[in-house]
Amino acid sequence: MKDIFTWLLLLVPASALSAYLTSEDSLVTFAVATLAVIPLAEWIRRATEHLALRAGPAIGGLLNVSFGNTAELILALFVLAAGKGDVVKAQLTGAIIGNALLGLGLSIVVGSWGREKQTFNRAHAGQLASLLVLSTIGLTLPALFDYSMRGETPSGRLIRDEHLSLAVSVVFISLYKANLVYTLVTHRGVFAYAEDDAHDGERHVPWPIWKAMTVLATATMVTAFEAEMISGALEPAAVQLGLSEFFLGIILLAVIGNAAEYVSAMYFARKNQMGLAVSITVGSTIQISLLVAPVLVIVSALMGTPMNLVFSSPLELVAIGAVVFSISAIAQDGETTWFEGVLLLAIYVLFALAFYFV
Amino acid sequence: MKDIFTWLLLLVPASALSAYLTSEDSLVTFAVATLAVIPLAEWIRRATEHLALRAGPAIGGLLNVSFGNTAELILALFVLAAGKGDVVKAQLTGAIIGNALLGLGLSIVVGSWGREKQTFNRAHAGQLASLLVLSTIGLTLPALFDYSMRGETPSGRLIRDEHLSLAVSVVFISLYKANLVYTLVTHRGVFAYAEDDAHDGERHVPWPIWKAMTVLATATMVTAFEAEMISGALEPAAVQLGLSEFFLGIILLAVIGNAAEYVSAMYFARKNQMGLAVSITVGSTIQISLLVAPVLVIVSALMGTPMNLVFSSPLELVAIGAVVFSISAIAQDGETTWFEGVLLLAIYVLFALAFYFV
Amino acid sequence: MKDIFTWLLLLVPASALSAYLTSEDSLVTFAVATLAVIPLAEWIRRATEHLALRAGPAIGGLLNVSFGNTAELILALFVLAAGKGDVVKAQLTGAIIGNALLGLGLSIVVGSWGREKQTFNRAHAGQLASLLVLSTIGLTLPALFDYSMRGETPSGRLIRDEHLSLAVSVVFISLYKANLVYTLVTHRGVFAYAEDDAHDGERHVPWPIWKAMTVLATATMVTAFEAEMISGALEPAAVQLGLSEFFLGIILLAVIGNAAEYVSAMYFARKNQMGLAVSITVGSTIQISLLVAPVLVIVSALMGTPMNLVFSSPLELVAIGAVVFSISAIAQDGETTWFEGVLLLAIYVLFALAFYFV
Repeated sequence: MKDIFTWLLLLVPASALSAYLTSEDSLVTFAVATLAVIPLAEWIRRATEHLALRAGPAIGGLLNVSFGNTAELILALFVLAAGKGDVVKAQLTGAIIGNALLGLGLSIVVGSWGREKQTFNRAHAGQLASLLVLSTIGLTLPALFDYSMRGETPSGRLIRDEHLSLAVSVVFISLYKANLVYTLVTHRGVFAYAEDDAHDGERHVPWPIWKAMTVLATATMVTAFEAEMISGALEPAAVQLGLSEFFLGIILLAVIGNAAEYVSAMYFARKNQMGLAVSITVGSTIQISLLVAPVLVIVSALMGTPMNLVFSSPLELVAIGAVVFSISAIAQDGETTWFEGVLLLAIYVLFALAFYFV
Repeated sequence: MKDIFTWLLLLVPASALSAYLTSEDSLVTFAVATLAVIPLAEWIRRATEHLALRAGPAIGGLLNVSFGNTAELILALFVLAAGKGDVVKAQLTGAIIGNALLGLGLSIVVGSWGREKQTFNRAHAGQLASLLVLSTIGLTLPALFDYSMRGETPSGRLIRDEHLSLAVSVVFISLYKANLVYTLVTHRGVFAYAEDDAHDGERHVPWPIWKAMTVLATATMVTAFEAEMISGALEPAAVQLGLSEFFLGIILLAVIGNAAEYVSAMYFARKNQMGLAVSITVGSTIQISLLVAPVLVIVSALMGTPMNLVFSSPLELVAIGAVVFSISAIAQDGETTWFEGVLLLAIYVLFALAFYFV
Repeated sequence: MKDIFTWLLLLVPASALSAYLTSEDSLVTFAVATLAVIPLAEWIRRATEHLALRAGPAIGGLLNVSFGNTAELILALFVLAAGKGDVVKAQLTGAIIGNALLGLGLSIVVGSWGREKQTFNRAHAGQLASLLVLSTIGLTLPALFDYSMRGETPSGRLIRDEHLSLAVSVVFISLYKANLVYTLVTHRGVFAYAEDDAHDGERHVPWPIWKAMTVLATATMVTAFEAEMISGALEPAAVQLGLSEFFLGIILLAVIGNAAEYVSAMYFARKNQMGLAVSITVGSTIQISLLVAPVLVIVSALMGTPMNLVFSSPLELVAIGAVVFSISAIAQDGETTWFEGVLLLAIYVLFALAFYFV
């Protein structure tokens, strides 16, 4: 697995070369820079993991959890800085449906190949499903509030959308801290098994701290470099491809920050550790609500280009709701079979179609 | 049980007589022709079952599943040909809420008479509930898409509704094929028990193929004959009864194609085979999404009177959503008690009331 | 526990004094009268319980269940008589989210202090969750119907809202009777354990009937007296506090009628009887749909100031839906941990924020 992501790093110089040979906002540059984020996200993840191993379980867990979405956040921040708040929100929605439908769907299909069914711990999956339900209600609240108030004059509504989004974000950051205490301190036992399993076959000596730090810093900076190219080339790329920026955000940008994670989830599913695959994909979905979205709202307010949480299309809410339903339905019986994976993928395809028509 | 459905066949000549004595679109003709569909649906089901027994398990299962909704489809096609797409969609919604609320509710009430509770296999019911959730999300997607876009100009929206409905239908037909492989090939064991149980008390020699084929062909043709009368008499009947065609579609037409199935479900519930009653009613609900609706969309496009999947009233979506919630809630604990049955029936009554007021 | 509620009764003369010293609709009078409802609700509950113990299990259960919401009903009736139907509906919504999010959330947090997790009977909780889902669908049906029909002329719609709300109420009162038969006759065993547990530590001699009757009658009358002051002072209080009457209804009035119940639930949660805490809070939530709301609709029609069940803000529906999702998610795994309690409280806070902005 390691090899592929090392080779894929060649996409980084390739993107620079393309920017030089064609132009900074050519379709080729956009495509190569986008793909280059995939290995960068993976290397950020690895550096964090090695740092975490050195730092001991408590702080290590904190590091792992906090830097898990770095690539995604950087990309979103550059798109936001380019004044495309709606694309960022599309990216959030896309990450949620990508993780839970595409990532988990692929894992189930890959994992159930040649097996009648795979089982996982119902209690743990149920707890993740509860968290997902509750965090999703909060995430969608500002949008639901906005739609409910559509009858009124838009001016006052927009300010209240702003205030409500900020308030929700503050509550969520607090919840996120509480969740860290929960998973890393009071209920370590429940969540730790995942980490132990994860390193089962591949337990090796952690990198020295200086190496981990260097890789982390370098990969983060290079990601920022690619993110700048992507956000700049987004508009012309959309025009040339005949697609909306919204569609590129919700399908393409949303997936690349998490693609490496999907590969991990598929890897563990194939090894019949379905519980771990569920933890990775659903856990990552929950993080979008509890951490990524609130951070973006707060940072955007500080940047002077405030972004609220009112999704531009009601269909985004429908998609997020569908994810909640699907994950609850899957988690409920503690079993997965290939047809459930196919269904998740089919729903993802249906939403992609719908977003294409929007 | 057999006798009743044989005697009820007398409704067929009665409907012809009524058309001759009164008129082809009199209220009496409408009523008798509608009732005549009930025994015809049952005889189509029986002929299919006998054919299936002759054909062996794999092809037999395929036959059983594919011809299970013949009467319903024929009726819908004739109504569609009469240019009443909204009534057909009402019929689909009505079949979904009819199967899951009325059919299952009646089964639970009948089955729990004199019993404290009835139990069924939670894992199997959970899987059916998952399928129901996921297929329903797809079925309602075009309508949700349409409502989300209501702000825009209608012209472009209608074309996109059309395209999206067709795309959803194609995805669903593929899913349906995958589901056949799932239930008949890779996971036969899980789903087969139902069939074995079904014939428990009444295992008899299957009809010879020529007899089964003749019954199937005849009953299908006679159903078409009745369906033509029903679709023709629908409008005058609605006027005379002071009801909307929509109401007749969602309550009356939706139920008659499935009435025989409800009788089976109640029969097994009474014999304390609650799992089978759940399989029949919920399975039939899933089939509406995965097979009946997509076939109607595709056939209607070929007939030149394209029907999309945008339900005419948002309340239809609410009703479908309520079904999903109810079934998930029922399936979750693997038990049914009479009060749950009463609740399902009460919800059906409430929706019937609401549809009456629409 | 008893002492506090006895001392709190001093709020009753305090409210009369405040009305005399300041004015009948001063902010102080409003505040004191509101707080005075808390001990009155508790004393009504106690008197009912003692009556019930004297009356034997069947009629006793009936009494307990029927008088459990007396204080809430009286308050709502006076607010209704003051012509504030929307505040009464806000109160209903507020009671639903208050019981299920605030009451249960507090119980979970209080109960899980110093415990890794608390468990409860999944089957029983699942049944309560089923009831909650199904009764909520009915309660929200008139509002969903109304929103679905928003395109039409308002005049006809309002009359149909009225009719549908009445029809739903009649169906619900019947369901409520069926539910009494269910919990008190046919399935006594399932639900009785709760009552037995409840009196575990504090089994004492029941009051004589005359004492229980006197306390019940007096507390009820005094509650009516306070309710009259509250409903009269509501408008000026809202103005002085800079809050909407809607907000006062959904947050303040909704909670005071149930505050004593929250204390019980927390008490049992602390004693590690989490199942009982779930029964109290979720059971009380179900009662709002099955009894309180229908009684208010029917009584309001008889009073000549008909109230329908169309909630004034769509956000109320969202909040009720969120409750259903949350409770289903919590009930599903039969376990509670402190973080789930924190999540419920956070959602309550988020909704309070949103209702503040409405």
